[in-house]
Amino acid sequence: MSDNNLVISVDAMGGDNSPRIVIEGLAIAAKKNPDIKFLVFGDEVKVKDEMKKFPFLHKVCTICNCIEVVHNEDKPSQVIRNKNTSMYQAIDAVRRKEAKAVVSAGNTGALMAISKMLLKTIQKIHRPAIVSFMPHRHGKYVMLDLGANTECSAVNLAEFAIMGNILAKKALGVEKPKVALLNIGAEEMKGKEEIRQAAQMLKNSSLNMDFIGFIEPHEISFGKADVVVADGFTGNVALKSIEGTAKLMRGMIKDAVKHSVLSWFGLPFLFFAIKKISKTMNPKLYNGAMFVGLNGLSVKSHGGADGFGFSVALNNAANLVRQDFVNTIRNELESVDLDEVSQDIFYEVY
Amino acid sequence: MSDNNLVISVDAMGGDNSPRIVIEGLAIAAKKNPDIKFLVFGDEVKVKDEMKKFPFLHKVCTICNCIEVVHNEDKPSQVIRNKNTSMYQAIDAVRRKEAKAVVSAGNTGALMAISKMLLKTIQKIHRPAIVSFMPHRHGKYVMLDLGANTECSAVNLAEFAIMGNILAKKALGVEKPKVALLNIGAEEMKGKEEIRQAAQMLKNSSLNMDFIGFIEPHEISFGKADVVVADGFTGNVALKSIEGTAKLMRGMIKDAVKHSVLSWFGLPFLFFAIKKISKTMNPKLYNGAMFVGLNGLSVKSHGGADGFGFSVALNNAANLVRQDFVNTIRNELESVDLDEVSQDIFYEVY
Repeated sequence: MSDNNLVISVDAMGGDNSPRIVIEGLAIAAKKNPDIKFLVFGDEVKVKDEMKKFPFLHKVCTICNCIEVVHNEDKPSQVIRNKNTSMYQAIDAVRRKEAKAVVSAGNTGALMAISKMLLKTIQKIHRPAIVSFMPHRHGKYVMLDLGANTECSAVNLAEFAIMGNILAKKALGVEKPKVALLNIGAEEMKGKEEIRQAAQMLKNSSLNMDFIGFIEPHEISFGKADVVVADGFTGNVALKSIEGTAKLMRGMIKDAVKHSVLSWFGLPFLFFAIKKISKTMNPKLYNGAMFVGLNGLSVKSHGGADGFGFSVALNNAANLVRQDFVNTIRNELESVDLDEVSQDIFYEVY
Repeated sequence: MSDNNLVISVDAMGGDNSPRIVIEGLAIAAKKNPDIKFLVFGDEVKVKDEMKKFPFLHKVCTICNCIEVVHNEDKPSQVIRNKNTSMYQAIDAVRRKEAKAVVSAGNTGALMAISKMLLKTIQKIHRPAIVSFMPHRHGKYVMLDLGANTECSAVNLAEFAIMGNILAKKALGVEKPKVALLNIGAEEMKGKEEIRQAAQMLKNSSLNMDFIGFIEPHEISFGKADVVVADGFTGNVALKSIEGTAKLMRGMIKDAVKHSVLSWFGLPFLFFAIKKISKTMNPKLYNGAMFVGLNGLSVKSHGGADGFGFSVALNNAANLVRQDFVNTIRNELESVDLDEVSQDIFYEVY
C-alpha cells in the first residue's frame, strides 16, 4: 500500500456487534469505493472468520492483529496509556501516515482522547470539533460542534465556521455554502457575548465565505443554512432535541396506525409517501460523527449501527479523504489570521 | 369586582389581529371558566364592536379604555416609560391588586420589561423565568427557562426547579413531579459547572422534591421528567429545535402524501390516526408562555395565535390563578434558604 492518500484505518473491535458489523460495513463500502484501501485493526482470528463471507475484501484490506480492546466503560485517562488496543493502533496508523482517516464504532471519549493526543490539532486551529451531516427540508447541512467543547470562545466558533464551510463544499458539494451561527434571535444584540463577537469576526474577516449571520434553532430544519455553528453544549442540545422529536413523531405515527385497525387498510396506498420520508429522515443515513481540526480525520460510528450504518461512516471518511480535507483546511487557514481579526474585535468591543 | 382572587386582566390590543382574536379567545375562555372575571384594556370602540358577536361577555368583562398601543418594533426601554398603553395598564392592574394575572399577545420584550418593573420578583427569587407546558409521549411537562435569562447561576437554576415543581403540581396535577436539569450527559461530571452545582444544591436541600438528576434533550419527549430546567439560552434552543423538527415532519408527511396520488386513497382510512396525533402535537394547545417568579402572573400568547389559541393562554392563567400559584411559591420558599444551600456547595467545590 504505497499510496496512503487513499487508505482508511478501521477499528474492527468497536461497537455492539464487532467485528461482524464492521466487516459487513467494509463489504458494502469497499464495493462503493473501489479506490480506497483499508487497514483493519483487531483480533485476526475473529476478523478473518467474518471475512469468509466476503472473500473479495482480502484484496482491499490488510489485517493488523491486535488482541486488546477498548471497552465502553474505560476512561479516556486509561485508554491513552494502552498502545495495544485496536482503537489506539488504528488511530496511530494515521499518525504514522499509513492512513488518512480512522473509523471506529467504539467508546467516543476514548476515540476523542487518543485522536487528540496522537494526531494533534492543525496549526492555527485551537480546538477540534465534532461534526455531523444532518437532513433538512431540501438536502443536508453541516453542524458543528456537537459536543467536543462545552464552552467556546469567539475564535473557536470562527474556526468551526471555517472548517464547516470547507466540509459543506467538499463533502456536500455546495459551491458557496451559507454559514450561520446558532443563536436564540436574529437581531445583532441577541444571545451570548461570544456568539456576537464571532459574528463580528466573520463579517470583518477576509475569508471567502458567505456568512449569513445568526440562525435560530427552528430554522435549521428548513435549509436556511448549509453550515450551522455552535459551541459543543448548544450543538449537542440542538442535535439531541432534533433527534428526540423525530423519534417521538415516528413512534406516534406508528402507534396511531397500529391502534386503529381501519388505518391498516390505508397503509398500502401510503407506501411511496412513507418510503420517501424514511429515505430522508433515516438516522442510518447520517451515521458517522467526524472529529475535525486534527492532523488526520477521525470518524465515530454509532455503537449500535448495523453493517449499512457503518458503511455510511466509512463512505463519509472516504469522501473526505479523496478530497484531501485536512490539507484543504491547512491551506485555507494559511491565508487568514484569526488571532489578528479577534484582536480588532477586542478593541472594538471594550 | 370585589373578589380579585379570580380576576385576569387582558391586553386587548396585542398580537396580529387584535382586538378581534382576543375577544374571540375571551368568548371561549369565559364559557370554560365561569368563575373568572376579566378586565379588558384597549380601544373601547373597537373592543365593544368585537364584543357585539358575544353579548354574554359583558357580564364577565369590564372594559378599560386605553387608546395607546405597544407596537412590535417598540423597544423595552421606551415602553416602560409610557403608562398609557393597553399593555402597561393591563399589567398595572395586577400591581394594583385588581387582577391576579395578565395575558397579552403583544411584544414579548415589552411584556417582560413592564412586568418585571411593575410586579417585581418574589422575595427570595433572584430572577423570573419563562415557562411553557409542552407535549411528551404520555402527557405534558413543564419547561423553564425558555429565554428570560441567557446566563444563569446554580442558584437561579435551583429556583427555576422549585417554581417548575409547583407548576407541575398545580397546573398539570402531577402529585410528585419528577424534576430534572437539562444536560448533555447523564453522568455527574458532565456538562457545565453551574448545572453540576445546581444538581448538588437540589440533592442536598431540604426541599420536598423528587429531583431525578440530569435529563438529555432526546429523553424529554418521552416523558422521563415532568419538569425540565435549563438556563434561558439552552431552554430556548431546545424548545425551538423541538418545534422546528415537529413542523418539518408535519410538512414532510403532508408533502409526501400530496405528491403521491395513490396515497390520497389511503387518507380516509388514516383519519383517526391523524386526528390522534394532531390532538397531541397541535401547537395551539400549548399556547401561552408564562412569566413566573414575579408578584403576579404574566402570560404571553403567541402573536399569531387565533381565538382558540388565545383562549388556551387564558385557560392557563385561569388555572394558576385559581390555584393561587404566586402565594404557593412564596410559602414554599419560606421554608428553604437557597443562599445557605449554595454556600455549602461553594465550600465543597472550591
